Amino acid sequence: MAECGGVDSSTSGHTMDKSITLPPDEIFRNLENAKRFAIDIVAKVRSFEHNAKDADSDKLYEISVQEEVTARLHFIKFENAYIETCLDFIRDHLVNTETKVIKATVDKEDEMTCLIKGCNFVLRNIPHEAFVYAKHADSEFRFQTTHPDIFPYLLINIGSGVSIVKVESEDKFERIGGSSIGGGTFWGLGALLTKTKRFDELLQLASKGQHASVDMLVKDIYGGSYGSLGLTGDLIASSFGKSATADKEFSKEDMAKSLLHMISNDIGQLACLYAKLHNLSRVYFGGFFIRGHPVTMHTITYSINFFTKGEVQALFLRHEGYLGAIGAFLKGAEEDNPNQYSWGENYAGSSGLMSVSPDMNPMQRARSGTFDMLEMDRLERQLVNLPLLQDPSSYIPDTVDLTEDALAREYWLYCFEEALDGVVKRAVASQPDIPEANERAEKFRQKYRHKLQTLRHQPFAYGSLTVRSLLDTREHCLNEFNFPDPYSKITSKWSLLVMPHMPIIVLMSALDNLCLKTIHPGFLLQGPPHKCALFFVDNSGLLSRGTEVVLASNSGPALNDVTNGELQILTERIAAMDPVIQAGLREDRLTLVQSGSSSPCLDLSRLDKVLAMVVRERQTDLVIIEGMGRAIHTNYYAMLSCESLKMAVIKNSWLADRLGGKLFSVVFKYEVPAGKPSQDSAALTPS
Amino acid sequence: MAECGGVDSSTSGHTMDKSITLPPDEIFRNLENAKRFAIDIVAKVRSFEHNAKDADSDKLYEISVQEEVTARLHFIKFENAYIETCLDFIRDHLVNTETKVIKATVDKEDEMTCLIKGCNFVLRNIPHEAFVYAKHADSEFRFQTTHPDIFPYLLINIGSGVSIVKVESEDKFERIGGSSIGGGTFWGLGALLTKTKRFDELLQLASKGQHASVDMLVKDIYGGSYGSLGLTGDLIASSFGKSATADKEFSKEDMAKSLLHMISNDIGQLACLYAKLHNLSRVYFGGFFIRGHPVTMHTITYSINFFTKGEVQALFLRHEGYLGAIGAFLKGAEEDNPNQYSWGENYAGSSGLMSVSPDMNPMQRARSGTFDMLEMDRLERQLVNLPLLQDPSSYIPDTVDLTEDALAREYWLYCFEEALDGVVKRAVASQPDIPEANERAEKFRQKYRHKLQTLRHQPFAYGSLTVRSLLDTREHCLNEFNFPDPYSKITSKWSLLVMPHMPIIVLMSALDNLCLKTIHPGFLLQGPPHKCALFFVDNSGLLSRGTEVVLASNSGPALNDVTNGELQILTERIAAMDPVIQAGLREDRLTLVQSGSSSPCLDLSRLDKVLAMVVRERQTDLVIIEGMGRAIHTNYYAMLSCESLKMAVIKNSWLADRLGGKLFSVVFKYEVPAGKPSQDSAALTPS
Repeated sequence: MAECGGVDSSTSGHTMDKSITLPPDEIFRNLENAKRFAIDIVAKVRSFEHNAKDADSDKLYEISVQEEVTARLHFIKFENAYIETCLDFIRDHLVNTETKVIKATVDKEDEMTCLIKGCNFVLRNIPHEAFVYAKHADSEFRFQTTHPDIFPYLLINIGSGVSIVKVESEDKFERIGGSSIGGGTFWGLGALLTKTKRFDELLQLASKGQHASVDMLVKDIYGGSYGSLGLTGDLIASSFGKSATADKEFSKEDMAKSLLHMISNDIGQLACLYAKLHNLSRVYFGGFFIRGHPVTMHTITYSINFFTKGEVQALFLRHEGYLGAIGAFLKGAEEDNPNQYSWGENYAGSSGLMSVSPDMNPMQRARSGTFDMLEMDRLERQLVNLPLLQDPSSYIPDTVDLTEDALAREYWLYCFEEALDGVVKRAVASQPDIPEANERAEKFRQKYRHKLQTLRHQPFAYGSLTVRSLLDTREHCLNEFNFPDPYSKITSKWSLLVMPHMPIIVLMSALDNLCLKTIHPGFLLQGPPHKCALFFVDNSGLLSRGTEVVLASNSGPALNDVTNGELQILTERIAAMDPVIQAGLREDRLTLVQSGSSSPCLDLSRLDKVLAMVVRERQTDLVIIEGMGRAIHTNYYAMLSCESLKMAVIKNSWLADRLGGKLFSVVFKYEVPAGKPSQDSAALTPS
Repeated sequence: MAECGGVDSSTSGHTMDKSITLPPDEIFRNLENAKRFAIDIVAKVRSFEHNAKDADSDKLYEISVQEEVTARLHFIKFENAYIETCLDFIRDHLVNTETKVIKATVDKEDEMTCLIKGCNFVLRNIPHEAFVYAKHADSEFRFQTTHPDIFPYLLINIGSGVSIVKVESEDKFERIGGSSIGGGTFWGLGALLTKTKRFDELLQLASKGQHASVDMLVKDIYGGSYGSLGLTGDLIASSFGKSATADKEFSKEDMAKSLLHMISNDIGQLACLYAKLHNLSRVYFGGFFIRGHPVTMHTITYSINFFTKGEVQALFLRHEGYLGAIGAFLKGAEEDNPNQYSWGENYAGSSGLMSVSPDMNPMQRARSGTFDMLEMDRLERQLVNLPLLQDPSSYIPDTVDLTEDALAREYWLYCFEEALDGVVKRAVASQPDIPEANERAEKFRQKYRHKLQTLRHQPFAYGSLTVRSLLDTREHCLNEFNFPDPYSKITSKWSLLVMPHMPIIVLMSALDNLCLKTIHPGFLLQGPPHKCALFFVDNSGLLSRGTEVVLASNSGPALNDVTNGELQILTERIAAMDPVIQAGLREDRLTLVQSGSSSPCLDLSRLDKVLAMVVRERQTDLVIIEGMGRAIHTNYYAMLSCESLKMAVIKNSWLADRLGGKLFSVVFKYEVPAGKPSQDSAALTPS
């Protein structure tokens, strides 16, 4: 993976416009700079019999490409109808032009190993990768927060057959069970029963059928429920039981539905039994039987709920269709140890989850079968939990889930749309000497506006929609069109650097005020002085008192938030003028560390490993999180194992309203973990 | 159950010929004296929709009748075509002739409760009830010895659907799982796929098909085995996987076979998982999917072996088809506490297991679907294990399993056939004053000869064939034609009584010799005198020394073996003449107890409860078993927890040959259990 380069590697000849749009020639364009790529040909059910004449659109090919320039992984899923376009592209762009024949070497990778590697990768690196499906709930998807500690889990891969795999660590997995009754059975029996050859059509039929006309229910046998055995009347006693002796014709729809229930219930029961037997609570479902199909997700979920009485949840993966390709790629890049890095989903370059409700846009539906993309940005270091989280497994960074809160969603989507003009202007202004910046900024505007529109209809596209994800998406889109830091020319960030005297004093006094404010109510200095305080800063803040201080700032640019690089320079300048700061730095009582984030928000479960180490070493006993993005939109409810102070000025009147205060109110939320004497834990005071 | 009467209740007007033969009018004749009967109407799959016009021969009706005279249970299974014959019979014989309308009251009994009750009953009362099926082995069936301790077990009932029931005690069971993929699914999907509506025909089709032409195998996907996952190439990866995309037509046979495999494997896996989860090693399979069908027994067995790697065995039941009827009857008779008695299969009145190999007699096959009978004799007391058995769970009474030993089987069947004339003569002689005894004796001859012929072709018909079962069958057949004790006029048994002086002396001296023989080699009197010796006697023997003696003799007549009743009289007469015996009786050092058996052989796992109690109370430390039937044909290998002596004169030259000795050799087999100083444990010395 060394050859994939960093952000600062040369972009020679590479157009600054990196937008990916359909159709295919655009799709494959991004492969141009790839050093390494793997084509994962997924020929479903037909045992790898590839036939160029056979334009069966159900066969998908997947390409995983590691782009050199941006340390980014591209995964593209497309129908095999486009395989020639792809090969043309490879011939024209990727292969030595003297070579007239493309020699394809297929490394037969172990399919299951690739699948598991891919699964570990997405579970570890993509927040909100896993979700619970609830057909009749307000929000179809309930996303799970992903944490670094992903093992052990059970993967139920439903392809032609079913493989039940227990995954215990990165390198240790075992196929503990399986079944021959899988997607191939639904397809095969379905084809025989209905003469319908297409898998999707069979699912369509199933979604319209009534299984009870084919299945024998408990009530068909006993006239009602079978109480003494705890069987309800509507329970299926015998799949296809009514077709044993009835002389009537059964409808295709009813038979397809009965078949779907039969298979889903069976897999559900097997999954539950294996989960119980191996004491596993996390059970993920994947494979082409599941892949984005609401009917199968629903029946599997129903079955799991029935058999485990809610003890085990059926979990699905947003990028389930990519697992094999990702795993194959990772396996090929093993000597580079891809796990030494962390990865994040790039919202600009990824298609996102399609709506799966039956009344969705058929165009969108079709797309999921033709092109689908996933891009992942590499972060140079491993991201880990903040060691001070009280319960990492229940930590949820975001304060409001806009997927579930329709009112808040409406507001924030409107808000980000309204702000778009300003962002475009700022982006152009940040590159005053580059003439085509205008053009790119316009493309950014289109792209982000389109994202916002998509999110309005599919708020679940990238997991739970949050203010954080909206901010991140904007950053990703800006970056996509090469506006990595639109605030680079904005004084609000650099003012500290540009005007060294006045603002620093202002800043310092502001911090003094802050200290007074927090100290005054008698919060922080009641006990002995803190050993070490950890500050998460946004676009202000620096403090040094008797307590050691760790200042955590963003690794990359986001809005006008100060980055670690900037803060280093800034702190040196301040130190030159301020003896307290100077002494702090010299005596190692003031430490600057990057957070690992490039977002205006803060996910305490994805922090730079070094920061976690410093926090532990310094025996940090106070965490201060400040700013709207870090303390209000995220972490407002975060529970820490030491004292914490969350503070922000509410700079948004809608939010102030919601919180029951006024615009520009200052929020101080001081919390002492259970077991320590606690104070009034939240205060919203007018500034 | 009080009203069902004992053996000695009046047989007023009841013909002495009790033979049951087809056709139906004969079948139902035995119901005439029934006080209580239950009709268990088993309408399979069609949810109890009974239609008189619908002569679907797959529907079976079962009748369970408790006959008054002989304390016997009759269970008859027959096609519903005969239901009118049955109802006619009931009207003509059982209902008050003034009543013109038969009022049928259907007590809706809980099906599952009945099933479990029936299952407990046959497991507890019918030796060799359960068997392992091995299609390709020398003997298709491997029978399991049944012991009183039957719990816990798992019952997988495969009817239309599948119920998985954990049975923990007589009254405690729980349906812990189930599946909608059962017999109804095979039938229903099979009917849709093949247009064949009959269940048996579908099985016939399946037995001729090749599943691999429809199923996708592992090798179809990977070109061979998938070694790293431990999957062999021939493993089914996806049931019906090939029919998903192939455009060809599939044969009915192949589809039926694939379906059968799919369902059997699925049930097999579920059964294994539930067995593991609940830590159960005994798993019985029943229901109409299984009922005598070799194809389904084979696929289920194969599946269980595959999934448990041999740890769990699939067990089937000989009388599986009767469970519901037996249970319903027992439930109706609950106030009589049927479990206070023990029951034994009557080989004369029961049909026995049909051959299930595909090349069997189609007539026989057809019979199993039309008439099938089970008769069970009631024994007045509970039968239990001899408390001195070293390991009751591994105790096997019979020395040679004739089902597996073809040579021995041939010999003994020949032997019993040869002896038939003599037995017939003796039977007639035992009833010199009854003119029609000749006629009945001829009927006995026909019946027993027919049984022997049946056993030649179906040695497995009543469980493992043994010398004991051949003897018992003869006793049962004799009894069937009212020859309860053909030896009643034979002096060899009664000589002791008839000629009180001489034979007793002879007997005593013989016993003295016996003692000398056993004592002489220094066996029995090396240590301190035994506390109590238990003698199982046949047609000789009585001993009293310093040691207390418990004399166990048959409860009912068998060959010329002395019965407990006879021994009581005999002993009193001896006591009148012999002071040692007299003192022994007076001082309670000599006790006569019935064994609970009416067989020339001895099953130490089915002994009268009182005998077991006495054995325990007297702290019995020596067991003496004598006679060919008790010490050679059975119990030769029985391991006891105290000293034991098995002795017999080998009165059969073929057997003497087999044992490597001469005719009339005397076998003394003295054994000391492990832990005690042991002697040469077996000796075959010339008499």
